[in-house]
Amino acid sequence: MFSIDWRPNKKDRMPLHIQIMEYIKSKIYSGDWPVNTKLPPQRELAHIFHVNRSTLATALAELIADGLLKSKIGSGIWVANNTWSVLASPKQVDWNHYVDSGICLPNFPAIQEINRSEFNPANIRLGTGELSPDLIPSAELKSIISKIPDKIQSFGYEEAKGLLYLRQQISQYVRDLGINASPASILIVSGALQALQLICFGLLPKGANIFLEKPSYLSSLKLFQSMSMQFHGIPMDNEGIEPAPIRYQNKRQSTSLLYTIPCFHNPTGILMTKQRRQDVLALSQQELLPIIEDDVYRELWIDAPPPAPLKARDQDGRVIYIGSLSKSLSPGLRIGWIIGPEPVIERLADIKMQNDYGSSSLSQWAAAEWLASGLHQNQLRKVRAELRIRRDFALEALNMYFSDIATWTIPQGGFYIWLKLIHPVSMQKLFKTALDNGLLINPGNIYDALANHHLRLSYSYAALPDMKQGLSRLATIIHKLEHA
Amino acid sequence: MFSIDWRPNKKDRMPLHIQIMEYIKSKIYSGDWPVNTKLPPQRELAHIFHVNRSTLATALAELIADGLLKSKIGSGIWVANNTWSVLASPKQVDWNHYVDSGICLPNFPAIQEINRSEFNPANIRLGTGELSPDLIPSAELKSIISKIPDKIQSFGYEEAKGLLYLRQQISQYVRDLGINASPASILIVSGALQALQLICFGLLPKGANIFLEKPSYLSSLKLFQSMSMQFHGIPMDNEGIEPAPIRYQNKRQSTSLLYTIPCFHNPTGILMTKQRRQDVLALSQQELLPIIEDDVYRELWIDAPPPAPLKARDQDGRVIYIGSLSKSLSPGLRIGWIIGPEPVIERLADIKMQNDYGSSSLSQWAAAEWLASGLHQNQLRKVRAELRIRRDFALEALNMYFSDIATWTIPQGGFYIWLKLIHPVSMQKLFKTALDNGLLINPGNIYDALANHHLRLSYSYAALPDMKQGLSRLATIIHKLEHA
Repeated sequence: MFSIDWRPNKKDRMPLHIQIMEYIKSKIYSGDWPVNTKLPPQRELAHIFHVNRSTLATALAELIADGLLKSKIGSGIWVANNTWSVLASPKQVDWNHYVDSGICLPNFPAIQEINRSEFNPANIRLGTGELSPDLIPSAELKSIISKIPDKIQSFGYEEAKGLLYLRQQISQYVRDLGINASPASILIVSGALQALQLICFGLLPKGANIFLEKPSYLSSLKLFQSMSMQFHGIPMDNEGIEPAPIRYQNKRQSTSLLYTIPCFHNPTGILMTKQRRQDVLALSQQELLPIIEDDVYRELWIDAPPPAPLKARDQDGRVIYIGSLSKSLSPGLRIGWIIGPEPVIERLADIKMQNDYGSSSLSQWAAAEWLASGLHQNQLRKVRAELRIRRDFALEALNMYFSDIATWTIPQGGFYIWLKLIHPVSMQKLFKTALDNGLLINPGNIYDALANHHLRLSYSYAALPDMKQGLSRLATIIHKLEHA
Repeated sequence: MFSIDWRPNKKDRMPLHIQIMEYIKSKIYSGDWPVNTKLPPQRELAHIFHVNRSTLATALAELIADGLLKSKIGSGIWVANNTWSVLASPKQVDWNHYVDSGICLPNFPAIQEINRSEFNPANIRLGTGELSPDLIPSAELKSIISKIPDKIQSFGYEEAKGLLYLRQQISQYVRDLGINASPASILIVSGALQALQLICFGLLPKGANIFLEKPSYLSSLKLFQSMSMQFHGIPMDNEGIEPAPIRYQNKRQSTSLLYTIPCFHNPTGILMTKQRRQDVLALSQQELLPIIEDDVYRELWIDAPPPAPLKARDQDGRVIYIGSLSKSLSPGLRIGWIIGPEPVIERLADIKMQNDYGSSSLSQWAAAEWLASGLHQNQLRKVRAELRIRRDFALEALNMYFSDIATWTIPQGGFYIWLKLIHPVSMQKLFKTALDNGLLINPGNIYDALANHHLRLSYSYAALPDMKQGLSRLATIIHKLEHA
């Protein structure tokens, strides 16, 4: 839980353990580490401070003797006191109680670790679902940003649904995908994740039923689970999610909807066929089951353009459509959109206003100028060509290193290969061992608790030599764990 | 709930009512207005379309006869059907059911109306809590934005707590306010409202007790109420919130905290004195009651700098501090920050990652460059001088038009004057009548249900001549309503 960016200065004449004591005292006195804060394990602290274990132990022992820290057997070291409290009052706010009682569940520990470890450049990121930095068109984006000062009309709040100029650009953009949406039926959001959050809080009562692919990206989010939504995982075949089990399970005793990623599904990479799309739409009509179509990977096709979106064939306003610039252009812009019936969009816009008063004006202008510039189609062509090279490279490396220990899907687009280990190993142990060896992976069980011998590999992020070396190292680790 | 940006073309040879019919049909066929959507009242629709009531009535009557619309006595006109459903199936997703059953309560109708009507430039905004567009330093901001392309290092995701460079700038900035905060104890958020959202979901169980000023900005938000938090409104005097009633009420049967706006309180404008700050901190220590210090108006002092923040005297990590650039620089950047003990900041950063994967990189870079440039102090000087002129002007206008119908506070900074009408009038009627007369006001009852003859006036937004004319017109309206 700690991000310590300090370490003792080995050239300083003050002994290392004293420097560490002074640092820890300063964190405690300032209130940054309040009473009852748990410190990281000693092994980790020694690693962070770049000192050996005995130096650290000396520092901690003195602080425990001073009464500032306390050691609880089997549960590590805690902040016990601060000078203020020693002098004046023994009573402290127990923030851990507040943190633990919050409504939202914390992220999976593995995801928290990934969110932290991604910023360590020494790690090879074999699971990251983002474009490699060299696939983000920085030069073109910079030229777009340099145009914003002449265009931007206001540094004030934008309309609840977002900048009209951007909504007009998106309306045109999705028309080419076959979707007929007026700017009034589009809501700008800060990425697809926020779209899901607004839907969770705006359209569903607690305990609503969500049908979704098994495994699914949605299962890796704690958001819906924090609100007690009931997930019903539905099996997939190589054409996409199977409609029959939904019909069987959907008793409509309560509010329900279907969440699906029909294009280059996260995490399996599966592309829903045209026929399956028709079947799913028919089911949605018969069962009165609204659909959330998460289509953020659509443009990243490699072999052939995917079939039209479900939303393109939706004449009754049964589909809510989510798109984004994060996967095809730049995550840092934080720009996505929701398209749906106007009453739904109005409701979600109201929740968005309650959350953050709308997305950054700067980002909205940058996205609008980008789409208006026509540069997006060039970018997509470039990304598709590069993804083809990367996918083929990754498949070759898998053939080389994994053919005796795993099977996998061959994606037609998107970022992901869904790897299934032939012999199960502990996901937790694999994740940790890989990280200790400088490899960041996305374990399958965060997408489906039962997918406990699966990995989501991504060929979009790591540089090719790193990818090859990383996969080779990963195979060795798996071999060892299998025989442990 | 509708934002119709279309109107019939009076120069077209097609009759107006036919044009309207075609427009409404297109909205229904496209799914934008699904079955069971309620149309705006006829009076409002006629106004939107710029046609007289009988033209509109003709169009609606034909659509009702076609079976596309239906009229429910006493509750207006609804979408009944669409061609698809007429031909194939009578069953439609009832989106109203989804919208109504969502977890989050909708905004107050008055706030929804304000959010919409602010974008009609014909309205004089007498309640808007924002800087007037001419107080936003557009030229300087544009020059900062033009520097971003040379500085920005990545268009990818930022760290969970936000761009380190921005956190370093904020750490320096708040040091001048007396707050000692390392970058690790700062979380970047998309404005102070998002800070409150993260606190609500991250630190509090359902039904937690929130002590707050009565009236309070927080009461105008439905967020905490959606999560069943218990609000305990505490009276204020002219030194700020009164500690004694908190001590009396705080039984600590459940998780609780104190939310306060000590500087130029929203909506009353009251500045908490130094003595009262000490009393509140002492209470917080005795009662183990954590404090959320919402300090977004601090820099907007007119007569003298306010006393140091509560956070500056917080040695035990009992205060969570919220700041923002929205009130002093630009709301469109959507940049604010939370400062608190590291375990709290880590928890809130995790929730932020679950919400939107962090704030816009562009906005974070712009904010960091702005703070690093040193331009902020110039901006604050300019804003303070202008707010003095605006406040004095508003008080003069109030003396002129309101001395026989209201009393009011004299703020020493911030944006707001809290107006109390001598004779109560219906807030709803006043709000509506004012809006019909092109005046947008913030009724007091959204800040406290019992403040039903109060208004929050703001002198920060409207141009001076508009402000004067608006206040004059408002006084006339109140006079009329008093005698109605």
